[in-house]
Amino acid sequence: MNAPYFNQKQPIKFKKGKSKGLAFRHYDADRKVLGKRMEDQLRFAACYWHSFCWPGTDPFGGETFLRPWQTAETMENAHLKADAAFEMFELLDVPFFTFHDRDIAPEGETLAESNKNVREIGEVFARKMEKAKVRLLWGTANLFSNRRYMGGGATNPDPDVFAYAAAQVKNVLELTHDLKGENYVLWGGREGYETLLNTDIKRELDQLGRFLTMVVEHKHKIGFKGTILIEPKPKEPTKHQYDFDVASIYGMLQAFDLQDQVKINIEQNHAILAGHTFEHELALASAVGILGSIDINRGDYQLGWDTDQFAMNIPEMALACYYIFKEGGLGTGGFNFDAKLRRQSIDPDDLLEAHVGSMDACARGLLIAEKMINDGVLADFVAERYAGWDTREGKAILAGKRSLDDLSKSVLKKGLDPQPKSGKQEHLERLLNDYI
Amino acid sequence: MNAPYFNQKQPIKFKKGKSKGLAFRHYDADRKVLGKRMEDQLRFAACYWHSFCWPGTDPFGGETFLRPWQTAETMENAHLKADAAFEMFELLDVPFFTFHDRDIAPEGETLAESNKNVREIGEVFARKMEKAKVRLLWGTANLFSNRRYMGGGATNPDPDVFAYAAAQVKNVLELTHDLKGENYVLWGGREGYETLLNTDIKRELDQLGRFLTMVVEHKHKIGFKGTILIEPKPKEPTKHQYDFDVASIYGMLQAFDLQDQVKINIEQNHAILAGHTFEHELALASAVGILGSIDINRGDYQLGWDTDQFAMNIPEMALACYYIFKEGGLGTGGFNFDAKLRRQSIDPDDLLEAHVGSMDACARGLLIAEKMINDGVLADFVAERYAGWDTREGKAILAGKRSLDDLSKSVLKKGLDPQPKSGKQEHLERLLNDYI
Amino acid sequence: MNAPYFNQKQPIKFKKGKSKGLAFRHYDADRKVLGKRMEDQLRFAACYWHSFCWPGTDPFGGETFLRPWQTAETMENAHLKADAAFEMFELLDVPFFTFHDRDIAPEGETLAESNKNVREIGEVFARKMEKAKVRLLWGTANLFSNRRYMGGGATNPDPDVFAYAAAQVKNVLELTHDLKGENYVLWGGREGYETLLNTDIKRELDQLGRFLTMVVEHKHKIGFKGTILIEPKPKEPTKHQYDFDVASIYGMLQAFDLQDQVKINIEQNHAILAGHTFEHELALASAVGILGSIDINRGDYQLGWDTDQFAMNIPEMALACYYIFKEGGLGTGGFNFDAKLRRQSIDPDDLLEAHVGSMDACARGLLIAEKMINDGVLADFVAERYAGWDTREGKAILAGKRSLDDLSKSVLKKGLDPQPKSGKQEHLERLLNDYI
Amino acid sequence: MNAPYFNQKQPIKFKKGKSKGLAFRHYDADRKVLGKRMEDQLRFAACYWHSFCWPGTDPFGGETFLRPWQTAETMENAHLKADAAFEMFELLDVPFFTFHDRDIAPEGETLAESNKNVREIGEVFARKMEKAKVRLLWGTANLFSNRRYMGGGATNPDPDVFAYAAAQVKNVLELTHDLKGENYVLWGGREGYETLLNTDIKRELDQLGRFLTMVVEHKHKIGFKGTILIEPKPKEPTKHQYDFDVASIYGMLQAFDLQDQVKINIEQNHAILAGHTFEHELALASAVGILGSIDINRGDYQLGWDTDQFAMNIPEMALACYYIFKEGGLGTGGFNFDAKLRRQSIDPDDLLEAHVGSMDACARGLLIAEKMINDGVLADFVAERYAGWDTREGKAILAGKRSLDDLSKSVLKKGLDPQPKSGKQEHLERLLNDYI
Repeated sequence: MNAPYFNQKQPIKFKKGKSKGLAFRHYDADRKVLGKRMEDQLRFAACYWHSFCWPGTDPFGGETFLRPWQTAETMENAHLKADAAFEMFELLDVPFFTFHDRDIAPEGETLAESNKNVREIGEVFARKMEKAKVRLLWGTANLFSNRRYMGGGATNPDPDVFAYAAAQVKNVLELTHDLKGENYVLWGGREGYETLLNTDIKRELDQLGRFLTMVVEHKHKIGFKGTILIEPKPKEPTKHQYDFDVASIYGMLQAFDLQDQVKINIEQNHAILAGHTFEHELALASAVGILGSIDINRGDYQLGWDTDQFAMNIPEMALACYYIFKEGGLGTGGFNFDAKLRRQSIDPDDLLEAHVGSMDACARGLLIAEKMINDGVLADFVAERYAGWDTREGKAILAGKRSLDDLSKSVLKKGLDPQPKSGKQEHLERLLNDYI
Repeated sequence: MNAPYFNQKQPIKFKKGKSKGLAFRHYDADRKVLGKRMEDQLRFAACYWHSFCWPGTDPFGGETFLRPWQTAETMENAHLKADAAFEMFELLDVPFFTFHDRDIAPEGETLAESNKNVREIGEVFARKMEKAKVRLLWGTANLFSNRRYMGGGATNPDPDVFAYAAAQVKNVLELTHDLKGENYVLWGGREGYETLLNTDIKRELDQLGRFLTMVVEHKHKIGFKGTILIEPKPKEPTKHQYDFDVASIYGMLQAFDLQDQVKINIEQNHAILAGHTFEHELALASAVGILGSIDINRGDYQLGWDTDQFAMNIPEMALACYYIFKEGGLGTGGFNFDAKLRRQSIDPDDLLEAHVGSMDACARGLLIAEKMINDGVLADFVAERYAGWDTREGKAILAGKRSLDDLSKSVLKKGLDPQPKSGKQEHLERLLNDYI
Repeated sequence: MNAPYFNQKQPIKFKKGKSKGLAFRHYDADRKVLGKRMEDQLRFAACYWHSFCWPGTDPFGGETFLRPWQTAETMENAHLKADAAFEMFELLDVPFFTFHDRDIAPEGETLAESNKNVREIGEVFARKMEKAKVRLLWGTANLFSNRRYMGGGATNPDPDVFAYAAAQVKNVLELTHDLKGENYVLWGGREGYETLLNTDIKRELDQLGRFLTMVVEHKHKIGFKGTILIEPKPKEPTKHQYDFDVASIYGMLQAFDLQDQVKINIEQNHAILAGHTFEHELALASAVGILGSIDINRGDYQLGWDTDQFAMNIPEMALACYYIFKEGGLGTGGFNFDAKLRRQSIDPDDLLEAHVGSMDACARGLLIAEKMINDGVLADFVAERYAGWDTREGKAILAGKRSLDDLSKSVLKKGLDPQPKSGKQEHLERLLNDYI
Repeated sequence: MNAPYFNQKQPIKFKKGKSKGLAFRHYDADRKVLGKRMEDQLRFAACYWHSFCWPGTDPFGGETFLRPWQTAETMENAHLKADAAFEMFELLDVPFFTFHDRDIAPEGETLAESNKNVREIGEVFARKMEKAKVRLLWGTANLFSNRRYMGGGATNPDPDVFAYAAAQVKNVLELTHDLKGENYVLWGGREGYETLLNTDIKRELDQLGRFLTMVVEHKHKIGFKGTILIEPKPKEPTKHQYDFDVASIYGMLQAFDLQDQVKINIEQNHAILAGHTFEHELALASAVGILGSIDINRGDYQLGWDTDQFAMNIPEMALACYYIFKEGGLGTGGFNFDAKLRRQSIDPDDLLEAHVGSMDACARGLLIAEKMINDGVLADFVAERYAGWDTREGKAILAGKRSLDDLSKSVLKKGLDPQPKSGKQEHLERLLNDYI
């Protein structure tokens, strides 16, 4: 039997003001925000891999955490790990968790054995979820760590690898369904290339389309009601990944005719690696109707890899929450902590500190967004700025009732010379700061 | 009358080996390469703006070139400029040129006057093109310099600006048609935003879609047979531009139902600002069938703005040519020199040196690509790598005849354990170097 | 006489809470913070060039501001500009301003005439400063805009350009002295290269060293008591600038033997262009004793050029203030607004909004830093972390009393196996957020 | 006993033209270039860690290479590894190799045991080096992989870790001396910070200075005649490393008074991570007299981490060689292959392909540089450009015989108005291409 892993023994509570022990200062699960309990708006999920699997390595350094279950890849350790994970879920009182198949159980000699291992821990989960009142936000298959996937899963030049990946997804998708997961995620970290010299983009896109379609077909076949999500990331581990960003995936979904079947799981760190702000990706996905869920973390704008730090930046969280909640929130999605400790944070309770700090930062973001949405000052400014498009002529243009000829005639006839209006960016930034 | 601007008096010729004067050492217009004259493969175009309009300013420095026609924005100077431009086209013996409306004639008090100015120089062009045997690769409207466009052309919050932009495009599209231009280009440098705080992405995308559709409708109405091209650029001048890269535009074209009507004009410098290699953008556009034309220049990977240097990097040109010509080349497109001198290159003939150097670099790229294509070693390697997908089972998977269930059963039954094969990247890079 | 330029007529005041008109909500000049009036800690300076000279151009767009004095480069307009500038200084009640020679007066036909123009406006300044109680934080010479400097000022291949630059500096340094400026700044935007192919780094470094030494010698000669400051910037406008960052300049100052004579003026946007955080540059300059002053603005981490936005990011300001004020502040330096409006912000009072918003953000940063410094929690954590170095053995090592042999023997003898301690980064980030 | 690891059995030879087997097509060890044998100019070294220790992992993927000696960290495997390493050194016929202590032998329970392990393999090396005629370019201590160094080696907050690091360096420095190594390297991958919040830069710089001084003192004490080298890298693994680039290290060396004792080992990939070109770092180090050696590899300009690819870019190699050899080459330094295979390159002989390809690329670079140096065209252009500084007046200025006053008087008196001259960048780039 597993002794408790954390030094913290009591679930962490919301306490206003400064307090001695670890407490939430802003995240108050039951507080109503924008019409729902804060917990039901943010739908926090703790993740398995960064918090319980990653051992603290980096490309130049070995393990630093030395957690008790990290001595070997055994089923016994998998059970210890599950104990510690649920210990943390309960201490944090998060409503959800997320996992990859290879996070929860060691790979076996054969896929059959691997699947069995995953299913065995799946049963442990079912019991623990019941007891701890923790739900599954999403499951996913790891199609990137094993060397068989070094050249891709769905986009592998070898159809046998494609088949293997498909078989692995089937197992986790069904487990996710059985555990009443609310979504299923695909991350294509090997679906790209290291060098164009050995790559056929056209073939790989066809393979990717077929793979994704099969997943959607299987979802319907088994009656899974959750959302299928793709998580964009432009690069790392490979030189180039097809799921580059929201706009790229939107193009592929249309080409695969899946734009109504698949949504997007947006991560801050992946957004910035693609050269976008987090809020850009959120707003764009909203605008084209494919915003699904988010991976909440924080990249370093000056480092070119996925640092996956715990999100702590309050103005950033405020903006993200504004763009998420002004459109009504995430539906089946949630705020998943795809975030990892710095490898020097080797005390067990550093994990708790990090989550608490970031949950508080998100809560502050949500509360700021609530005020911005309720006041409506920013939204009104924007609506006013585009008001010309709500006139009869504006609508006629958009409705396709005006041609180049029409507009040209009109401009020439009226001698139109439209004058620019101030964009008021600094004014808006100042306004925004008033909320922070 | 305009005295000759350049010191070079004779058209520049191809001469093997070192020679005293300025000569092409690799660009031999009549040499047959991959079945066509080199000139007909590369279809070089000289551009008007960088070479004849930009005065050498940068964000921290004033004019350096002081070209004779840059004393004021008058029609008289517009004529002088046209003389110098065609002088250069003839000295370089390029088959094509390209222009923006605002490059060739000054803006008038009204759009009517501006249009008239553009048309007046258009007539000069018609005569000079005839005489010089120079054709028009494409024309385009400048929807970004004038302050009326500071908040966008098609995506402007003010429908009057949209109308003005439409009227301007009509004029240039028709002039392009009259001058037998082979394409018409749209570059959306202001179609984006400076801050999300004052921006409605959804509205702006709708506007953009309508604008582009109107252009396509007008093309058909006037019987223009050329290709409509969009030129991606991710950022600069704005924080974010919708025409971010090939994948983004592919998504938008599908959303606007224009994927069969519009192709892409890819620029090296814009590709790298988006985080892609030039060859990636070329190969992706080819794979999805929307490669149209290229702007040939060279960005600095370590500077975050459009440096638009003359393309001189031979291995890069070789790869670009390989991906362009293994699919048969550019159709109505060409190699347009959207490249500018460094602002310290103030001698008139620096313009000639730069073009000759870059035309030679492109010619070397083409000759290298020819060998690579004819040898077929790289293509064979790639075909062999994906050969599994040409088997009966591979084809069945792609044809949608296999489900997750089928593939899972097959893997489990066979105890499939696919072994990875070397990607041979270094081997291929070594092979590539043998061609250079 | 110049009519007032701004619509705002009354000096902007500090008012707690929301108010109708433009007011400071956090910047309260007379409030004591860390032992001094807020005004005397922050020492704000408004700058001349971005606010009164830049016309709203960008590399793809023309003028947008069309300010009344921007019709032509005349002395008459220079006077109008000075009127507007001091109007703004008084409306904002900033204690300081800064200028380049070419900002304040047009260049003449000869240097003599240019100097005379500069001096004429200098006299206007003297009167206005007296009246408005505005002081000069620093002056500087523009050695980058005119085409004569396209290849550098001090590092120009032509010694005549070096001489011209020297003569220009002499004039502004003396004017700065006469106006009781508290510092003199050198920014080396052309002291670098576009291509190594035409550059001799060794010669250019020698020239730079000599130039800087001459400036220091002249300062002493004329009895100027202010600080000579260098402003690092790694690139833009050139490919590479020698004054890359704090560490580079520290190396050059030592090589020139000027490390006790020259300090550094650090700008946020330049820091991030060099790949550093603003606080890194501040902390490093403090650690090596050369922190002089700051240019307060905000770059976009995702754009590769100097966007020079108004600083509005509160957590960033808090960290910057923490590292500045825990070491006692800036001495003769100050917070200079080297920041510009977005070019779409064309209303006159946008300038006021921007300054007020940013002054408030700085004030909030200072107030947060005050709490952090007074609480001492962060400083105590750091001191405790390094406490081993304050032991007898730690001191002995640093004092040079231990050799590799000594330490090796000691480790081997004791069988030393030092255990790592948690770096507690997330804990500290959570702590930090408590102050924000 | 170890069976041969590689399929290639015969040392790889130079063969002109295409040949069936693996052969050098450009690297001809005995060919005289710039007065020395090619082997003696390039002084190639194969490195131990990337080629024989790194197992093919990346942050998202497990081992791919599965080399026979990678089953466990045992002394037996260390011997197998040494066999394979020397097998490769002989197949490639490289004159040098390089190693870290932890590459060659597993860490023991205590430092004493670790040292013993290192020494045991050191004896194997001595025998193998004798037999294979392979020399040691440099050794170094790994002060970054073990978790004890997670917070730094020399800059660790714990002086015991500093002592441990010192003891480890002593052992490897002495082994390097015993093996007649020509240099000793320090790479400070943990000498930096993850967050300023827990860091005291001033203390850490003092520690770093003392550490480096101790190494130099010990070198002299034991009579080691080789060069002490620091290898700059700006970031990765940490957020910030003190040894950022050449300019930063130059500053620190002066502050530590070690500028005559220590030189720099420059790596292409580290140069570009710092925002510099490789040739910039080479030229700057040359200019200030601290160029020591190079790590030859190739980073991806579009990926933000150390990809350490094999250098294959011929124009880049040509420029690097030009800047190295026009000043006479590397002295005790060499071209060290700090380069790794792509993790998909899993065939044993991929290692040979990669080295051969890159050695050929370097050889081509050297041969191009030879022509450029012998022709002198570029050097003459540069000399001519700065010729004004060789006049009496130019020399007087640099010699400190002119003041700001003198120069100002001279400019005003002569009415000096220096005219800019073309920088001829495109002309020079075209010239350069003629050599490639």
